[in-house]
Amino acid sequence: MNEYDWHKIKELAITWVKEASNQLKASLEETIHVETKSSPDDLVTEMDRKIEQYFLQKIQMNFPNHAFLGEEGISSEEFDNRDTIWIIDPIDGTTNFVHQQYNFAICVAVYHKGEGKVGIIYDVMNDELFHAVAGQGAFRNEERLESLAPVKVDKAIIGLNARWLLYKGKAFQPIVVDLVRQVRGVRSYGSAALEMAYVASGRLDGYISLRLSPWDFAAALVLLNEVGGCYSTFYGEPLAILKASSVFVGKPQFHDVVIRKFVQKELNS
Amino acid sequence: MNEYDWHKIKELAITWVKEASNQLKASLEETIHVETKSSPDDLVTEMDRKIEQYFLQKIQMNFPNHAFLGEEGISSEEFDNRDTIWIIDPIDGTTNFVHQQYNFAICVAVYHKGEGKVGIIYDVMNDELFHAVAGQGAFRNEERLESLAPVKVDKAIIGLNARWLLYKGKAFQPIVVDLVRQVRGVRSYGSAALEMAYVASGRLDGYISLRLSPWDFAAALVLLNEVGGCYSTFYGEPLAILKASSVFVGKPQFHDVVIRKFVQKELNS
Repeated sequence: MNEYDWHKIKELAITWVKEASNQLKASLEETIHVETKSSPDDLVTEMDRKIEQYFLQKIQMNFPNHAFLGEEGISSEEFDNRDTIWIIDPIDGTTNFVHQQYNFAICVAVYHKGEGKVGIIYDVMNDELFHAVAGQGAFRNEERLESLAPVKVDKAIIGLNARWLLYKGKAFQPIVVDLVRQVRGVRSYGSAALEMAYVASGRLDGYISLRLSPWDFAAALVLLNEVGGCYSTFYGEPLAILKASSVFVGKPQFHDVVIRKFVQKELNS
Repeated sequence: MNEYDWHKIKELAITWVKEASNQLKASLEETIHVETKSSPDDLVTEMDRKIEQYFLQKIQMNFPNHAFLGEEGISSEEFDNRDTIWIIDPIDGTTNFVHQQYNFAICVAVYHKGEGKVGIIYDVMNDELFHAVAGQGAFRNEERLESLAPVKVDKAIIGLNARWLLYKGKAFQPIVVDLVRQVRGVRSYGSAALEMAYVASGRLDGYISLRLSPWDFAAALVLLNEVGGCYSTFYGEPLAILKASSVFVGKPQFHDVVIRKFVQKELNS
């Protein structure tokens, strides 16, 4: 396969995602119906590693020149931003995976020369596939996602884990408290990738996390690019695709207003 | 139809719920694809009333002796607890309905002499039907829900709207803050009925709201009875089925520990 045909690469990656999702579902069935000695946390560790290995093998077999970034680091020592890299999250929402058997996702992103080319976020239990190729639109299953329309702060529904409201003494804490007071509503689903896919598909107007890893947000950014979604660190700086950081994604006008009127205003006060 | 055959009444009510859900879906399709002058809030008001009227007519035609409780009050002036009453929420999660077109539910409960006989919570967009008849088990679609197992506080995932954490000066506020710090995770989906159905089906270990109306929780209590779920006001008092109040539902041991070690301890301190 042409290693730069992003559409075909996405189609292939989706077949791997579907196969991986079957493995995850089978592991849950087994754990629920068979007495095991392993704890829920062992199941996460085991399946996280197993699915990551599965993707690594598929990628090395099909694209030997591509690098791979997972929770165990980068596969290629000489990787730099000129290359093509796959960024994989085998299970986004691990707590949901073991405790809810619900609302967890497999995430696959392909970046080339630092630009997002392919983004896939798959809600395994709801069989809801969010996917995009740069310049070719973003989709929820077969349905093309529309460009995001601006929304005012007092009409906005944001995704935010309630825990961030309680970090007294942190610079971000008064800002998120103020924001939660001003917006229309707050939701939390326990999967950063799904919550960002919900921003791309219009179910949420914004999503904030004060700490995410590249594999949590890499795929979502490709989706957001296709629908005019904005993203940055919580403080308005550009996101570095290979670095853990705070993340704030949102509808165009909303993102801008929050950064200017909430974040920067508070930090400069 | 025998007006006390709760199983048959449930089956009939499910056909009404499915018909009502088609009306809700059609209204969303229309609003999305056709230019209208009406605001999202007008759509809620209109569909809330329309679906409530639909159920009222069906009930009056089929069960002329049954009373009806909806947002516009009780249909029968001489209603008391000896009678049979239908408690309906046409759209639980109205903000989700208009802003997300996702994660909203239709709720139907039938109570007889103060006891829950039938409970139905239907997640319209996910086509997920939670239903129960007293003494005959609770179900998620065709699958029978298992009895809830105890869970420790530090392993629990609870449903709670982040807003409740910010009500400084209220007696409940330090309690929910403390609880959010101690539990494993917090989720918020924006539909009280769905969140309580998630407790009944094990996706959440508890759910807290500081203010709900009877139509928000009546159906859920019937589900919870069938799986050994516990419920009370947030302060541990019995729930009155015809009165707005705070609500705390949870797995057996978890509910007890939270009431004793968080709520009562704080209130007595």
